[in-house]
Amino acid sequence: MSQVELYDTTLRDGSQREGVAFSVEDKLRIVQQLDKLGIHYIEGGYPVSNPKDREFFVRVRQLHLQHARVTPFGSTRRTNRRAENDENLLALLKTEMDTVTVVGKGWDLHVTDVLGITPEQNLELIEDSVRFLTTNGRTVIFDAEHFFDGYQADSEYAMQTVEAAIRGGAQCVVLCDTNGGMMPLDVKEIVEIVHGRFDIPLGIHAHNDAGMAVANTIIAVQAGAVHVQGTFNGYGERCGNANLSAIIPNLKLKLGVDCISDEQLRKLTNVSRLISELVNLSHDEHQPYVGRAAFAHKGGMHIDAVRKNRRSFEHIEPELVGNEQRILISELAGTSAIVKKLEREYPHLDKRSPEVQRVFDKLKEAEQEGYQYEGAEASFQLLIHKTLNRYEPFFELLGFRVIIEKFLNADMPSEATIKVREPNGVVEHTASEGDGPVNALDRALRKALEKFYPSLGNVHLTDYKVRVLDTKGGTGAKVRVLIEASDGEDTWGTVGVSENIIQASWEALVDSLEYKLFKERSSG
Amino acid sequence: MSQVELYDTTLRDGSQREGVAFSVEDKLRIVQQLDKLGIHYIEGGYPVSNPKDREFFVRVRQLHLQHARVTPFGSTRRTNRRAENDENLLALLKTEMDTVTVVGKGWDLHVTDVLGITPEQNLELIEDSVRFLTTNGRTVIFDAEHFFDGYQADSEYAMQTVEAAIRGGAQCVVLCDTNGGMMPLDVKEIVEIVHGRFDIPLGIHAHNDAGMAVANTIIAVQAGAVHVQGTFNGYGERCGNANLSAIIPNLKLKLGVDCISDEQLRKLTNVSRLISELVNLSHDEHQPYVGRAAFAHKGGMHIDAVRKNRRSFEHIEPELVGNEQRILISELAGTSAIVKKLEREYPHLDKRSPEVQRVFDKLKEAEQEGYQYEGAEASFQLLIHKTLNRYEPFFELLGFRVIIEKFLNADMPSEATIKVREPNGVVEHTASEGDGPVNALDRALRKALEKFYPSLGNVHLTDYKVRVLDTKGGTGAKVRVLIEASDGEDTWGTVGVSENIIQASWEALVDSLEYKLFKERSSG
Repeated sequence: MSQVELYDTTLRDGSQREGVAFSVEDKLRIVQQLDKLGIHYIEGGYPVSNPKDREFFVRVRQLHLQHARVTPFGSTRRTNRRAENDENLLALLKTEMDTVTVVGKGWDLHVTDVLGITPEQNLELIEDSVRFLTTNGRTVIFDAEHFFDGYQADSEYAMQTVEAAIRGGAQCVVLCDTNGGMMPLDVKEIVEIVHGRFDIPLGIHAHNDAGMAVANTIIAVQAGAVHVQGTFNGYGERCGNANLSAIIPNLKLKLGVDCISDEQLRKLTNVSRLISELVNLSHDEHQPYVGRAAFAHKGGMHIDAVRKNRRSFEHIEPELVGNEQRILISELAGTSAIVKKLEREYPHLDKRSPEVQRVFDKLKEAEQEGYQYEGAEASFQLLIHKTLNRYEPFFELLGFRVIIEKFLNADMPSEATIKVREPNGVVEHTASEGDGPVNALDRALRKALEKFYPSLGNVHLTDYKVRVLDTKGGTGAKVRVLIEASDGEDTWGTVGVSENIIQASWEALVDSLEYKLFKERSSG
Repeated sequence: MSQVELYDTTLRDGSQREGVAFSVEDKLRIVQQLDKLGIHYIEGGYPVSNPKDREFFVRVRQLHLQHARVTPFGSTRRTNRRAENDENLLALLKTEMDTVTVVGKGWDLHVTDVLGITPEQNLELIEDSVRFLTTNGRTVIFDAEHFFDGYQADSEYAMQTVEAAIRGGAQCVVLCDTNGGMMPLDVKEIVEIVHGRFDIPLGIHAHNDAGMAVANTIIAVQAGAVHVQGTFNGYGERCGNANLSAIIPNLKLKLGVDCISDEQLRKLTNVSRLISELVNLSHDEHQPYVGRAAFAHKGGMHIDAVRKNRRSFEHIEPELVGNEQRILISELAGTSAIVKKLEREYPHLDKRSPEVQRVFDKLKEAEQEGYQYEGAEASFQLLIHKTLNRYEPFFELLGFRVIIEKFLNADMPSEATIKVREPNGVVEHTASEGDGPVNALDRALRKALEKFYPSLGNVHLTDYKVRVLDTKGGTGAKVRVLIEASDGEDTWGTVGVSENIIQASWEALVDSLEYKLFKERSSG
């Protein structure tokens, strides 16, 4: 099947999801990842409403992207402005991007009840706005908002909105199911009709309010659409947008549409998880293709069948999308991964080695308790060496105490005291204040250790995350703390788990300093 | 459109999801709810593998169900047994249920590679097993496992498995997409062909590995299926089963299939949430139709439009499925959202009222500091009333102190002391230990207040979330804490923000108790 363009709107429509907010740095990082994945268009934001989005467009111009065009998004001109004076259209031009996306109304209900203008005026708005941008040298993608609802209410008028965009010079018209309520066979019929009538590339933009966003997108492509809009992990307001993490492999592996390369497809799982990490939302384990459970087998019969023939219970090979099979009770899958982890430092070990078994048992136990080492490679390294008795401690904790007080409206000081014994037998007993208890503890620990290990002065924490594991436990719930540390050269992640956030943070903190010292000793 | 039978398998296939396990009591409670909702069949379990499932079938016979038939589930007989000696088939009979579901292989790959028998032997297994049950007076639903993959591999053989079930006397044949990888238009084509060939009611059983389970189910009905299998909230292994919470409203509101009554449909949201409560999984907020965010509006333009005409951004009326519209409060939303929030208690205010402006300014300031009220409507209510000087405090905090200690490998106690003054002037000074500092503080605060406000004894915290706002700040970063509390009747969310996690938690904790008292005072 012919080429399909992928258009990602995670940074704009995706950010409409409750709780999602991107910093400019997050956005730039995501743009680079999507570019490597082979996404053709990345909608960067709404420059007129948001100063952060304007900054983004300045900074994104300095990136050297391989594949992707970054596009700003905005509405058709205001009803009482001429296009050349409309601040929204001018903001689009000011981003200096060569392709811009303009949204206009495709449903007469919105025109009369929301905008409060006549249907004819709306057609003028669309044509005008698109023409202003094309005559200023921009390539224009036109999003026909509420097109499907509009078509069902008044098909002729909906068609006229598409015609207006074409007259203005749009390069592509995107049919939007903005309210997300369409059924797939209706989408099929309507896209076929529009496709038969106009000689312009059509796109599809679906929302998931009826659970149909992915299906409607795929069916629209089968009906003639060649441009697909969606977000990663389906982020978006209400029930979300069409999920590109499912659409891309469906296009490529099920429909044979060569939208990205095989190698790019293998990055899909990573990109999906990285984006959820950046917005600090748990990655949905049950997400098609990229979820941690997407190829996990639980029932004994299923595992047996999968071991006899993977196709028996797997619709695709998980490696194609960068995911992996998980056998939830079998030990085979786990140990071979550990052998692979150990092979550089312990090349003589294989699956049957008792050392591998010991590490595996330790790992299983830790995962049971809520540890997760995917983002905490340094803690996993320390776990291996401690389990194999190849680790010599750098200090001994004798104790710590953290006190947090609040009296009337006074500032709330946090104070930590700490007592550690260093290898030479010297006991350091010191104290520090901090911005909160974890910061106080962090400072006190460094203060105690830096005399003996001055290189710890170069380590700084670059990231601190807290995830509540079993939210039902209320304030007594277990938490997982992830810390990222850097010494300017390397960056490493550590993890701690406890019902006590101070204890969980302490574990991750200690690992982050121990790993620095361990790294030096190993290379020295 | 004609009647469609709804078949729920939450209790059997749904329990294959990692982490889902039902007690017999849970199951009986769910059966009663599904019965009230008008579900026609409830698959109760797999009696041969599981003593708990056997107990369930004994106890379920004592319920007086209005609509639903409860069915046991089992495989065709073993290859080396005669039907009358097969313990699996006998276990089905022993449940004394009048309808039973039997699953058999519809894909030659499974027959040869997994069962290790010939295709002809498999046809005998199917026919034999179904006939044994029908001659024993049972109505048999036959699940043709992997039917679609089987059809694509060898359509003639797949058809023969259906024929074998029909010869055995099956009342309904269910076509299963067991691996969940089918595309909707392929499902359409295959169901139409099977429907054209056999004069037997067809069912559909879809999994969600390609994100298509709901679409494949709806399209199968449009292609002639009259029996629909799924689970609530889409629970199931890997990426889950077809989600009945989306399928039922799609059938009734979009396709006009009268599968349950209007009154029953209004229970849908409650049933979906109750089931997630019983399995102790957070209810997916973004689920179509029944999610808390399914009809939530955030962007200012959207809110404005929804106020002018609800249809503009809502594909159905949320009340039809027992859900409700939510206007999310955020800077983006603007003053019209605030007017809407205030309209019940302050009906005379409009966009230009100085009170609205004051609340808006306060909100902007709070959001600047990192507060977010989308999931914390109780804190927002308190903010409104405090800003408008309509709030009288329930207690005065004189101070608290939290101490966390760790010495050698001893357990790490957390202790909180607290001093509050109650409205009658009495000062309570008390202390508590806890699982971590926040839990200790939570307990101490309740202990201090419960004497004066005994109704706080009914409040429990159902959710506790921590988000690090600027992760780059390391351990000194600002955090946002969200708490959800419930008194058994209502559930409400509160928020706190600080560099100090204890302070942030304290704010959210206090709001959660204050809101309870405020609610009582307002209604009392």
